[in-house]
Amino acid sequence: MRTRKQKSVKESFTTMTELVLPNDTNTLNNLMGGRLMHWLDIVSAIAAQKHSNRIVVTASVDNISFKQGIKLGNVITMEAQVTRSFNSSMEVHVNVWAQDIPSGTKIKSNEAFLTFVAVDQMGSPIDVPEALPETEEEILLFEGALRRRQLRLVLAGRMKPHEAKELKSIFNLDENVPD
Amino acid sequence: MRTRKQKSVKESFTTMTELVLPNDTNTLNNLMGGRLMHWLDIVSAIAAQKHSNRIVVTASVDNISFKQGIKLGNVITMEAQVTRSFNSSMEVHVNVWAQDIPSGTKIKSNEAFLTFVAVDQMGSPIDVPEALPETEEEILLFEGALRRRQLRLVLAGRMKPHEAKELKSIFNLDENVPD
Amino acid sequence: MRTRKQKSVKESFTTMTELVLPNDTNTLNNLMGGRLMHWLDIVSAIAAQKHSNRIVVTASVDNISFKQGIKLGNVITMEAQVTRSFNSSMEVHVNVWAQDIPSGTKIKSNEAFLTFVAVDQMGSPIDVPEALPETEEEILLFEGALRRRQLRLVLAGRMKPHEAKELKSIFNLDENVPD
Amino acid sequence: MRTRKQKSVKESFTTMTELVLPNDTNTLNNLMGGRLMHWLDIVSAIAAQKHSNRIVVTASVDNISFKQGIKLGNVITMEAQVTRSFNSSMEVHVNVWAQDIPSGTKIKSNEAFLTFVAVDQMGSPIDVPEALPETEEEILLFEGALRRRQLRLVLAGRMKPHEAKELKSIFNLDENVPD
Amino acid sequence: MRTRKQKSVKESFTTMTELVLPNDTNTLNNLMGGRLMHWLDIVSAIAAQKHSNRIVVTASVDNISFKQGIKLGNVITMEAQVTRSFNSSMEVHVNVWAQDIPSGTKIKSNEAFLTFVAVDQMGSPIDVPEALPETEEEILLFEGALRRRQLRLVLAGRMKPHEAKELKSIFNLDENVPD
Amino acid sequence: MRTRKQKSVKESFTTMTELVLPNDTNTLNNLMGGRLMHWLDIVSAIAAQKHSNRIVVTASVDNISFKQGIKLGNVITMEAQVTRSFNSSMEVHVNVWAQDIPSGTKIKSNEAFLTFVAVDQMGSPIDVPEALPETEEEILLFEGALRRRQLRLVLAGRMKPHEAKELKSIFNLDENVPD
Repeated sequence: MRTRKQKSVKESFTTMTELVLPNDTNTLNNLMGGRLMHWLDIVSAIAAQKHSNRIVVTASVDNISFKQGIKLGNVITMEAQVTRSFNSSMEVHVNVWAQDIPSGTKIKSNEAFLTFVAVDQMGSPIDVPEALPETEEEILLFEGALRRRQLRLVLAGRMKPHEAKELKSIFNLDENVPD
Repeated sequence: MRTRKQKSVKESFTTMTELVLPNDTNTLNNLMGGRLMHWLDIVSAIAAQKHSNRIVVTASVDNISFKQGIKLGNVITMEAQVTRSFNSSMEVHVNVWAQDIPSGTKIKSNEAFLTFVAVDQMGSPIDVPEALPETEEEILLFEGALRRRQLRLVLAGRMKPHEAKELKSIFNLDENVPD
Repeated sequence: MRTRKQKSVKESFTTMTELVLPNDTNTLNNLMGGRLMHWLDIVSAIAAQKHSNRIVVTASVDNISFKQGIKLGNVITMEAQVTRSFNSSMEVHVNVWAQDIPSGTKIKSNEAFLTFVAVDQMGSPIDVPEALPETEEEILLFEGALRRRQLRLVLAGRMKPHEAKELKSIFNLDENVPD
Repeated sequence: MRTRKQKSVKESFTTMTELVLPNDTNTLNNLMGGRLMHWLDIVSAIAAQKHSNRIVVTASVDNISFKQGIKLGNVITMEAQVTRSFNSSMEVHVNVWAQDIPSGTKIKSNEAFLTFVAVDQMGSPIDVPEALPETEEEILLFEGALRRRQLRLVLAGRMKPHEAKELKSIFNLDENVPD
Repeated sequence: MRTRKQKSVKESFTTMTELVLPNDTNTLNNLMGGRLMHWLDIVSAIAAQKHSNRIVVTASVDNISFKQGIKLGNVITMEAQVTRSFNSSMEVHVNVWAQDIPSGTKIKSNEAFLTFVAVDQMGSPIDVPEALPETEEEILLFEGALRRRQLRLVLAGRMKPHEAKELKSIFNLDENVPD
Repeated sequence: MRTRKQKSVKESFTTMTELVLPNDTNTLNNLMGGRLMHWLDIVSAIAAQKHSNRIVVTASVDNISFKQGIKLGNVITMEAQVTRSFNSSMEVHVNVWAQDIPSGTKIKSNEAFLTFVAVDQMGSPIDVPEALPETEEEILLFEGALRRRQLRLVLAGRMKPHEAKELKSIFNLDENVPD
């Protein structure tokens, strides 16, 4: 029996820094949400490439919310890392910080989950290594990946809600706040 | 008592067409997911601006999945329309088609929901007109907006699952496929 | 005898929406004429592609005038449609509107005619379907296409002025305003 | 009586060189017409700025034709120079060459006339110096400017054809080829 | 007597990741040197901003050599850190790696030194904190900074060669290879 | 014995003009150093292509300093010319001027030396014509090329300082200011 290759999630860690330039902003001089999503896609794709050593294509982007405006001239730091892999797909977690250097402020502005599929040169899906979490935070992200995957499948109409066991428990257990 | 202004959702209808150029693609000559998200943000923001006659900022993008590759040279058509408004926020629905003109194929490649907040010149939220659906499809999108909003709030940790009445019903009623 | 394929001009209708961003403007914050011409070329090329189901190359752009400034943050709407075809070439008509959403103004800012040639994969010209006008406006644009074509040929030094019968009539008939 | 300032047309001479990069090309690897027009607008605007020492806005672009494909990797050389001024407006003439350096070929690919209006900081038109031609070629371009201006006004519906005396002569004199 | 603020050089550490896209490459599909220099300038400016908490302007870029071609699709990782500060200026050191993920290769492709000046809102130079090296490598870079600064001044004609004591020693001591 | 082809340095002369647009500037509205370096690389590469009639790749950029800020809206003029060739490599000299047209000022803002290697279609170095200087200035640049080349080799650790005879003389001769 062939054993699937294993790889620490840490090996996929990728940092990207961007400077918010005039063309990235709207008429209020705030970073446009779409530009940030473009950067998130690139940094996460690189993390997924590092895990799989393959070309990857974006499969989905989870619900992402934009809490506060990021201003022209801010420095954006993104840190992406694979959380878990499923056959040919990988979930990537990204944290985003916005830093206003002259005023010395740095806020965590966003958090996102994207999934990618590894493909061969013909564009066909191909298996990726198993992703091994090590730290406590990595283990929490690894475990949550199953629940987020079920939500994606339900939202895409590819899984019936009553089959989403991991997910369903959340919505039945009153008083509990989801992660 | 002041009555809130009303406006047909149809008035916000916006079409955007883009040609997939080399810099929009990865090394397999497929459109990168992040570039498409950038375009979705712009076309939806214009729809939300038309509804509110205000500057708008992106508040969230719902889970979006990318089913098939869109190739270099394809023509992308996006159609965006407001589905419902809530005080200062608006949900926008977008359909995306990819067309390969020489081969005569046109496929529906994506569907997305984004929300925007209308702001004044200082960036403070400001009320928008009530959105009135008219066709059967518009009414379905209007009704689903409440459920999608609860899911966004639960996912953002701003609503407890047991309070999300509209949403919860889906996950309790076995056998039913969600819209 | 082979009959040439016919196609309604309406089938080529294409709408493109653009948001005027900082890099599209000059130091007065007005949209630069060259950027608008770039967009006109893309929307018209897509209309010509739809009519011919072929790759197309720009053959000419008619005289275009820029009446008023279009400002940063404006929404530009362009509507392009084939007016008439000649063997392998097609004339496309474009209307351009500029909309300042917060102030609620929308003006027709430009109108342009571009011609394209359909080519095969080797870049050689190839015949396109006959273009059929239906509405009154489409018929007027179809008829005017002959006159505009003669003007293009005269200006390019490929037709002698006295041979441009359609065109000449305009300049001989005093008191008449051309369309 | 105030005498209008005079300036040699040569002082406005401007050369611009561009390298055709992937994003400038269509799927046949040919330079897109719209990108070339964007560059023509910038080089001509700089020539008009040099003549007027003012900010300028594009007023019109004359009929331009694209004879042969310009390839990816080609070097584009544009030479722009004011031909004549009229109160606050200036006509600029541009020659375009495309050079394929490895094969050692260089062809004149286009020729264009653009007009610009000089404006003050508020965007209001302001008078520019009189443009003095010196060489034989400059004098020919200076003289033709009047005829091209009448054609622009007739095409824009701002001059009746029978009033366009300079222009009319061309279309009445059979056998003569226009410049 | 006022004591100048001190700051560890490590606090300025900045990583930037870029994906080589089609428009970044020449006709051999190699990254163009100028695009890499553009990225080096941005990542180094961010490091200098972190050290000074100020807006910074590029003062100089030291001799940089490009050893091997970086290909389309490669992932570029840049790591920048301040080495030493002099009144209002800071020297930044950058290492560049190019990674071809599908083939699993990663090479160190470049190394560069850039200097920046911190400025206030009016653009006038302003003092920055003293930069403290800690590790052995940081101390070597700190010490070499003086020598590199003299070379810059000599090359800019602002210091006579015989005054560049640190630098001169290198060129007098035969047999020694410079760092 | 084969004689190497000779070519006047003047034949490689290339002028490039750029308009400083919003996305080229930092938050002080000054041109970013990295953008200027990107333009310098393109104009110099074109000059090297003209001399060699080959595809060229950037080999190095010499120390470059940025004396004063170049503002948004300025017109940048770059003039590049090959100074000397060495087997498959060429040194290119570039002068940069920044012009503020409304205020009528034009300053020489930078001067740079870049080297390029001519390559064949496989990317292997290939010999280029000998470069012949004619004017006094061209001869001075030709002679200095040897000294600058030794400095590049020493800085890259590929030549020992005591072997750099041309260079060493500068640092031993006190009181002399280098060119």
